[in-house]
Amino acid sequence: MNQQDRRVFDSLFSPRTIALVGASNDAGKHTSRPQRSLRKHGYTGKIVPINPRHPEVFGDQAYPSLLDVPDEIDHAFLMVPAAAVLETIEQCIQRRVPVATIYADGFAEAGDEGRKAQEELVARAREGGVRILGPNCSGIVNTEPSCTMSVNAAIEQLEVPAGNLAVISQSGSMTGGLVSRGLGRGVGFSKIVSIGNESDLSAAEITDWLVDDPHTGAVLLFLETLRDAPRLARAARRAVEVGKPIVVYKLGRSDVGRSLAASHTGSMAGSDEVADAFFRANGILRVDNLETLFELPTLVAGHQPSKRHRVAVMSTTGGGAATVVDRLGTMGVEVVAPPAELVDGLAERGVTIPPGPLTDLTHAGTRADVYGAVLDELIASDHCDLVLAIAGSSAQFQPEISVGPLIRAAKDKPVAAFLAPHAEAGLAQLADAGVAGFRTPESCADAIKAWVNWTAPAGAGLDTDPTVVESATRALEVFAGRRPNELESAAVFDALGVPTAATHVISSGAAARLPTDAAVSYPVVAKVLSADIAHKTEVGGVVLRIGNDDDLTDAVASIRQNVAERKPDATIDGILVQQMRSGLAEVILGFRRDPDVGPVVVLGVGGTLAELYKDIAIRVAPVSPDEARTMVEEVTGLAVIRGYRGMPKGDCDALVAAIVGVSQLAGDEFAAVEEAEVNPLLVLPEGEGVVAVDGLVVCRATT
Amino acid sequence: MNQQDRRVFDSLFSPRTIALVGASNDAGKHTSRPQRSLRKHGYTGKIVPINPRHPEVFGDQAYPSLLDVPDEIDHAFLMVPAAAVLETIEQCIQRRVPVATIYADGFAEAGDEGRKAQEELVARAREGGVRILGPNCSGIVNTEPSCTMSVNAAIEQLEVPAGNLAVISQSGSMTGGLVSRGLGRGVGFSKIVSIGNESDLSAAEITDWLVDDPHTGAVLLFLETLRDAPRLARAARRAVEVGKPIVVYKLGRSDVGRSLAASHTGSMAGSDEVADAFFRANGILRVDNLETLFELPTLVAGHQPSKRHRVAVMSTTGGGAATVVDRLGTMGVEVVAPPAELVDGLAERGVTIPPGPLTDLTHAGTRADVYGAVLDELIASDHCDLVLAIAGSSAQFQPEISVGPLIRAAKDKPVAAFLAPHAEAGLAQLADAGVAGFRTPESCADAIKAWVNWTAPAGAGLDTDPTVVESATRALEVFAGRRPNELESAAVFDALGVPTAATHVISSGAAARLPTDAAVSYPVVAKVLSADIAHKTEVGGVVLRIGNDDDLTDAVASIRQNVAERKPDATIDGILVQQMRSGLAEVILGFRRDPDVGPVVVLGVGGTLAELYKDIAIRVAPVSPDEARTMVEEVTGLAVIRGYRGMPKGDCDALVAAIVGVSQLAGDEFAAVEEAEVNPLLVLPEGEGVVAVDGLVVCRATT
Repeated sequence: MNQQDRRVFDSLFSPRTIALVGASNDAGKHTSRPQRSLRKHGYTGKIVPINPRHPEVFGDQAYPSLLDVPDEIDHAFLMVPAAAVLETIEQCIQRRVPVATIYADGFAEAGDEGRKAQEELVARAREGGVRILGPNCSGIVNTEPSCTMSVNAAIEQLEVPAGNLAVISQSGSMTGGLVSRGLGRGVGFSKIVSIGNESDLSAAEITDWLVDDPHTGAVLLFLETLRDAPRLARAARRAVEVGKPIVVYKLGRSDVGRSLAASHTGSMAGSDEVADAFFRANGILRVDNLETLFELPTLVAGHQPSKRHRVAVMSTTGGGAATVVDRLGTMGVEVVAPPAELVDGLAERGVTIPPGPLTDLTHAGTRADVYGAVLDELIASDHCDLVLAIAGSSAQFQPEISVGPLIRAAKDKPVAAFLAPHAEAGLAQLADAGVAGFRTPESCADAIKAWVNWTAPAGAGLDTDPTVVESATRALEVFAGRRPNELESAAVFDALGVPTAATHVISSGAAARLPTDAAVSYPVVAKVLSADIAHKTEVGGVVLRIGNDDDLTDAVASIRQNVAERKPDATIDGILVQQMRSGLAEVILGFRRDPDVGPVVVLGVGGTLAELYKDIAIRVAPVSPDEARTMVEEVTGLAVIRGYRGMPKGDCDALVAAIVGVSQLAGDEFAAVEEAEVNPLLVLPEGEGVVAVDGLVVCRATT
Repeated sequence: MNQQDRRVFDSLFSPRTIALVGASNDAGKHTSRPQRSLRKHGYTGKIVPINPRHPEVFGDQAYPSLLDVPDEIDHAFLMVPAAAVLETIEQCIQRRVPVATIYADGFAEAGDEGRKAQEELVARAREGGVRILGPNCSGIVNTEPSCTMSVNAAIEQLEVPAGNLAVISQSGSMTGGLVSRGLGRGVGFSKIVSIGNESDLSAAEITDWLVDDPHTGAVLLFLETLRDAPRLARAARRAVEVGKPIVVYKLGRSDVGRSLAASHTGSMAGSDEVADAFFRANGILRVDNLETLFELPTLVAGHQPSKRHRVAVMSTTGGGAATVVDRLGTMGVEVVAPPAELVDGLAERGVTIPPGPLTDLTHAGTRADVYGAVLDELIASDHCDLVLAIAGSSAQFQPEISVGPLIRAAKDKPVAAFLAPHAEAGLAQLADAGVAGFRTPESCADAIKAWVNWTAPAGAGLDTDPTVVESATRALEVFAGRRPNELESAAVFDALGVPTAATHVISSGAAARLPTDAAVSYPVVAKVLSADIAHKTEVGGVVLRIGNDDDLTDAVASIRQNVAERKPDATIDGILVQQMRSGLAEVILGFRRDPDVGPVVVLGVGGTLAELYKDIAIRVAPVSPDEARTMVEEVTGLAVIRGYRGMPKGDCDALVAAIVGVSQLAGDEFAAVEEAEVNPLLVLPEGEGVVAVDGLVVCRATT
């Protein structure tokens, strides 16, 4: 970190002097609150109220304007109306204030005019060397040293203990709610940031800084939309390296949620599925339940993402265990039974456990020695990667039976504890001891699912075969600056390792039949070849199942006539005659550059039904073969090539290679490629490969 | 209720004399607990410990055996080992004890031997006039009058306030956990029952009794499996009539959950989807989150199931509201914007609300008068059927702003309140006032989803057309006592109003071509007609796309030869020649008698993909046209006939009629029909109907 950044973040979180611009001397007003909050929670720096009508505000000497303040100001909290913000920023520039936090709303979140005003503001601040938090930001909290600079009523009221969780929330109105929920779950906080419109300082940039903050052990993000993704990715990767989990709760899973997020924060939310791929690619844990935000960090703190995700389950209450395990089952999480050696070893020590995936000790096993022995064995055993330990009623009234052993257990692998009763004291003991305790079966399962999806960030650059890059580049150069036709697109896919069905082109004027030396034999399909026609079927440009030369002659004539009538302006490069092929499955394999997240690769099953079921796998590109294989596993409809019900297996290896190949378009060499899609890609039986039947490459228009 | 039942339930919950058989005088033993619990929680009746080795146990005179007790005994709690249970039941019979609760496990839940022992036990008890609760039951709690007869440690410790919730749990070890969680959510209880193996007294029978219990306002069921469904259905229907919600949390959603439930309770869980259909048909509310069990009753108490399910949302925190609304969106719940009149009316009173489905009052609207005005208007307005009111940080520190208006609001429609912060005091105030407050966004959305799925129980007997019954009965009589062939099955479906494609049968020896007067014309499909061949394609018994007489002759010969080779013993009734038809969609329409729930009707999309996506709708049969229409709406893949992306619409009305028709097999007249399935049923374009292409009816073997 450079010196300027250090000064910015010191001023943001640990200012020696804070100017409260617009601080009210009426205790009933929000704008009087920061001063009160700062004092109440032990801020030891200097507070300078800026108020043109009062020489003193609640005991602090006030000044009519920033320009009148004799001291150096580290952080200005602007609580003036939107219309007065720009002028105040000008004063900050004049006074060389490193950071200005802006409370006013009415900027980007309020429509086009506000967006323009915000852009102007940021431009001016950048020019003048002032960093901005907000606008539409309710403030920040630091616990060491204490700096509770916020207009939030809850933040004023709450006694926030120092702890290792940092919270960044895009919703200002939820900031207090989040913190109070965290306190309710026994956690403490290092920093709390209402990030507002992120006009300048973003959640990503602050996260990046928090990775190096000694007071912060995990960063919790409450997001409505994904902004500044590349920087968040860098921060997240560094966080994994140093073992600080980044946990995100993101709205916008549903269409209605997306529309709310959009109206609420002033930026269109990206596709939620793409966000998921982004989190996965960068080792960010995503939770689905609000409370899991606060319960998950302890589960993964000090651990790296696991390669395997086998869960062992022990309990003294079968019903209580089932509330979690049943849910894990619907999520596809693998629950494993202990191996015979473990069972036998315990039996030798007089501890009998039942066979099967649920180690239910029952009422008889509700003893600290039994619970502890089983727990320790499961943690020590190689057969599982996480231990889920459930405790029954004893957790409430005899915590020494289950909570005790949990607290004493080794921390060699993640241990998730679910207490079946309402057991606040037991949960608090677990929290104090750094054991991940869960209050509801739902948040417990949610956390385990997030852990299952937590994978090591993919290497920044996967090994790319230079030959592949070279040949694909050549194939792209053929149509540089214009749209390619189907054959030209196919050449790109071919270069990337995705073969196309054998083809023969009948040029204008040439005989409409197959030469004897053609690579193609009947039956064939004939398609119009034109860069100008995106939807060939709609213009009558495709004839299927052509069995002989006569039918081919007819087909070619009919296609030429149809296209001449319905798309008279299109340049026709010929008629593409392609071997008719059929596969065990038809898939869609796509690549695109998402505006938020960058290059992604998408795999789905072809056809309307698959579209209805939204049955796709998305990853940030490029992907490794291992990651591509997880995509093939993830698409439900591809069970038909994975041996479902004795059906013949498809060539999954070839499909994996095709995914990896197409994902290489993410490389810098291919920056011009905006989108590429093979649709359909036929998956042939094992060992016979895959065949692209149609495809399209879209490049950025050269200017 | 007859006098005998009254005596049983009085003895179960309000016994004047309890015999504790096997009561220990060692305070460290579970078997000493009921005596202590009863006394601690204020039981005023007589306690008689049965202990052969001590004349007195903790101050109560003890007797060596039940036979030695001078008093009349209302309720015997058997805490003897499994092997001694039968003998003790004999004593109960001798002493005319109306109810015996059995703590011992090792019965049906432990395998075949235990199951046999349990059956023997129940048979003897029935004979002798003793009703049994359990075995594998930890006891019961009544709060008015107090009777805490349980071996559960948590139950002993907890101070359970009287309230209107009754809990019945199939998991004994979760009983304490459930109650402590309910207490944590501020509710009180009327009765708590560990139902055990339900060898005699079932959750259904007790629920039925609780419907008439003046102390019980709602019944909460923690189920691992569905038992005694017909009785539970009757109880649930009565409960809807009297306005007492029955709320169920049922395990077994996942395969792994099902297997746990099976090993745990000693009975195979039925299909979870069928259970869902059962709950829906009988007005039982099913929750997905454990905590919702305790939060939901207040939401629906005093209300009947609604015909429409439009949700209005108001909030002072946009982010907090989105945590619930985003989730509602993924569940397909309809969130509606307030009408212009409502917006205008509020504006006239000086309250400005934004347009759109989320009425976000923002920080500016964080005032009791504003919050109350908007809430009251939404409750009074016809545009919505439920109001979801979210409160921000103020709910924690200024409850008068949001909690106050919620408490004062009219109860004309269900109001769900979600408090975004950790606001225990606010939640307690809401609970005290009978307002449904939710602690997490997840349980709030879960409750609203349960309310959306809550429909009025279908009429016991739907109107059945006697003509239909008569003709279907005749069609069934044709093959009474044996398996039907395809044509005979088709006649049944036809009688039920599901037409089959035109057919012509070529008998053995007849010419293998279409007569000029045949109802069928080329192209056709030829299929072997035999009651002995279930899978025609597998034996080479089907030829598709036959275009002329010559091809038909070949096809018939080839089918006869294939079948003679591969299925030589099959009786061949001829070759069925059927018009080739194609539809906009192929669906599966099935009927079966579920062993737990009884007749159900199932609608799904045909093909492997639909099977993979488990895209089906199930209802208890018979169904009304309205209910059948909800099935057509529910199947995702049927979007292709609902006008998805401008695709031509299918004849949904005809599909609805077909569902209703097949569902009539539930009638008593058709008791012999075990299963029936049309597969595929083609849905033709609007106005053109549906056509069954193949189908099968399976009747019970006549003996």
